[in-house]
Amino acid sequence: MPETKAPPPVRIDPARLQAMMEGVCVFGGGSDGALTRLTLSREDGQARDWLAAWFSAHGLTPKVDAIGNQFGVLELAGPGAPTVMVGSHLDSQPNGGRFDGTLGVLAACEAILSVRGALDAAGLASACNFAVANWTNEEGARFQPSLLGSSVFTGAAELDWALARRDGDGVTVAEALSRIGYAGTDAVPVPDAFIELHIEGGPILEREGLRFGAFTRYWGATKYRLAFLGRQAHTGPTPMAERRDALLGAAYLIADLKAMVADYGLDLHTSVGRLEVRPNSPNTVPSEAVLFIELRSGSPAILEEAELRLKAAIELACARAEVGHEVRSIDRRAAGPMAPGLVRLAERAGAANGTTTRHLDTIGGHDAVSLSAVCPAVVLAVPCRGGVMHHPTEFTSPEDQAFGTQVLADMLMILATDGMAAIESEGGRS
Amino acid sequence: MPETKAPPPVRIDPARLQAMMEGVCVFGGGSDGALTRLTLSREDGQARDWLAAWFSAHGLTPKVDAIGNQFGVLELAGPGAPTVMVGSHLDSQPNGGRFDGTLGVLAACEAILSVRGALDAAGLASACNFAVANWTNEEGARFQPSLLGSSVFTGAAELDWALARRDGDGVTVAEALSRIGYAGTDAVPVPDAFIELHIEGGPILEREGLRFGAFTRYWGATKYRLAFLGRQAHTGPTPMAERRDALLGAAYLIADLKAMVADYGLDLHTSVGRLEVRPNSPNTVPSEAVLFIELRSGSPAILEEAELRLKAAIELACARAEVGHEVRSIDRRAAGPMAPGLVRLAERAGAANGTTTRHLDTIGGHDAVSLSAVCPAVVLAVPCRGGVMHHPTEFTSPEDQAFGTQVLADMLMILATDGMAAIESEGGRS
Repeated sequence: MPETKAPPPVRIDPARLQAMMEGVCVFGGGSDGALTRLTLSREDGQARDWLAAWFSAHGLTPKVDAIGNQFGVLELAGPGAPTVMVGSHLDSQPNGGRFDGTLGVLAACEAILSVRGALDAAGLASACNFAVANWTNEEGARFQPSLLGSSVFTGAAELDWALARRDGDGVTVAEALSRIGYAGTDAVPVPDAFIELHIEGGPILEREGLRFGAFTRYWGATKYRLAFLGRQAHTGPTPMAERRDALLGAAYLIADLKAMVADYGLDLHTSVGRLEVRPNSPNTVPSEAVLFIELRSGSPAILEEAELRLKAAIELACARAEVGHEVRSIDRRAAGPMAPGLVRLAERAGAANGTTTRHLDTIGGHDAVSLSAVCPAVVLAVPCRGGVMHHPTEFTSPEDQAFGTQVLADMLMILATDGMAAIESEGGRS
Repeated sequence: MPETKAPPPVRIDPARLQAMMEGVCVFGGGSDGALTRLTLSREDGQARDWLAAWFSAHGLTPKVDAIGNQFGVLELAGPGAPTVMVGSHLDSQPNGGRFDGTLGVLAACEAILSVRGALDAAGLASACNFAVANWTNEEGARFQPSLLGSSVFTGAAELDWALARRDGDGVTVAEALSRIGYAGTDAVPVPDAFIELHIEGGPILEREGLRFGAFTRYWGATKYRLAFLGRQAHTGPTPMAERRDALLGAAYLIADLKAMVADYGLDLHTSVGRLEVRPNSPNTVPSEAVLFIELRSGSPAILEEAELRLKAAIELACARAEVGHEVRSIDRRAAGPMAPGLVRLAERAGAANGTTTRHLDTIGGHDAVSLSAVCPAVVLAVPCRGGVMHHPTEFTSPEDQAFGTQVLADMLMILATDGMAAIESEGGRS
């Protein structure tokens, strides 16, 4: 019986949301607006403790799984009912911003709290249970790959493999989890839907003067961890012709990767964001240069062609610099669609708040992209100033945060009222 | 009265030298032949303690100056007599070799000990005093610039400035000296001559089947510490055209610097040995890339032209990558000759040991190059396998070590017999 029951009104509390945003950013926040809360760091542990305390204070049951994903479960509908999970991540980039991830976790808390309050006030039961999620290592800054917690959760990554990933200091994920007390033992089942609110991280909403969007398609990514291998030698006496400079190979490849995008318009992004040089001494020819290469596209065909061109460019760089190479790891993520039923639900809740819902591509990874392999999932987007993300100037106004959270709450209220049929029926209309 | 007195025979003890070489390489040595003894590290402090104990045990007076240069003074001729200083450095590159620097310090110890023994046996007084030197931060791996200790000693660098240099962790030279107890207070005067025995660090002696050489000319170097300045952004959604990728600017410049040498035959060396990328996260466009650039040549004119071309290449890289730049520091060292009198003395002592003395250019910096600004100075060279230096496979055979040390001891014995006239008269023959 879709859309026959009118859901009771739900109003989120913008001041309460802001207080939470300000409360959690003390853990890793700098005076210039920056946030450095690397996953499983001391600051991340403190933010997690803060969130766990919030769960307990508001009647959600705190749970932690073996990869450290943190959940707050609210069983409004009993053990047999479907669960709608909402959330994002509290970890950040080094010298990153305060909204990427954090907004999604706290908006989930605020929306679920508001929905429960509205249901209570109306004397209604919920058709589903809710859970807040804070995923481990979304960012991939300290440990690679990114989306590690959500990938283990969905089975896309092996737990033991994930626990053995090491940071730049050689610390494993398992060790880092133990140090902050988040090596959990709870088994949390895959939910019936996953919804993530996130800042857009791009300029489209702001440019078009829009307040709200939904990511309807996710780009694929091919990530190489590639080492050029040269020979360590003194930069003084070693004749130029005898040098085997690993960094020179890296320089050739970085330039070629940038040149490649010219052939694909806006449909290919390439980058080398991280480069490790060894021994990295001013007067020693580098023996090793490890590049973290990303190719991203919404088109599987372009991604495939770009990878072939990458391989050719690696060979060329090796020949020109007279060095060897070694592919240390390859991580491929397919492009694909988000759940149409959840996109339609977002449109319906958006319309109830007087907004159209801009369809967007998500190019960066999101935990909802991981989740979409095992359940309906969507990412909702609110604007961020100048499209900036992963930088201290990253900013989304309190009004836009509240607006996105309100639409999220309205979506949850429809699900609480109509159950999973709200997604299926919406999906069925397409 | 040059060459009228025949100096008494002196024979160094190769086994004693080897025992010293093995004794000191426990401080920072790895099982694969590598040595990592960064200046003022714990391992460097232990090696210094070892050397100080050796000085005391063998009648040399240990002294340490304010920049941590370590000396062992042997006053054989009394306070008014000239001093011949001999030595090199105990610090190493990260993952470097065991002979670069260390051989020069321990050969100095062995040669001075042998000369004193031979003088005692012959019942002769010395015409000069001797001192062993172990210079702070020759390598420039942990703190920049290299040759820091010898540069402060000669007045080429200010003490306060040198003490304020910071390593990659933000630790100053002053703090590092205090931690290992080598913030000294001794005032050690400039010597009347400085002699340094060193492995060649290049392939010429080995290729030509020679056992011994002298560096007669030193190359100049122009070193830039240059930052490309971009804008931090997410590598996913940020459109390629809006990226300001500092690492891309670095890549263009590294490639151009390599291309430049083709126009100068063997007379120009260029390198980027160290590159710091910030924030260095796989999915963030780099906002800063700091390059440690070296230009080296034996020709002042080429060095000057190369610097102009470097500046043009920086502008071009900025324009291509649409980033800014900032020159953080420039360090220029002029090319020049080593002391001809000491080269002739080396030839005379070499001939007495049945060898010609191959004239070499030193391209890498040496403390003797610093010292040559204030007193006659020379670097003697022994072969190293494959010309390799700054690498765990760096190797000079015990026989070649002993041979170089023997020639050094013969030079010191001539100076002990004839005094400084041995250098002047030799120089006067040119």
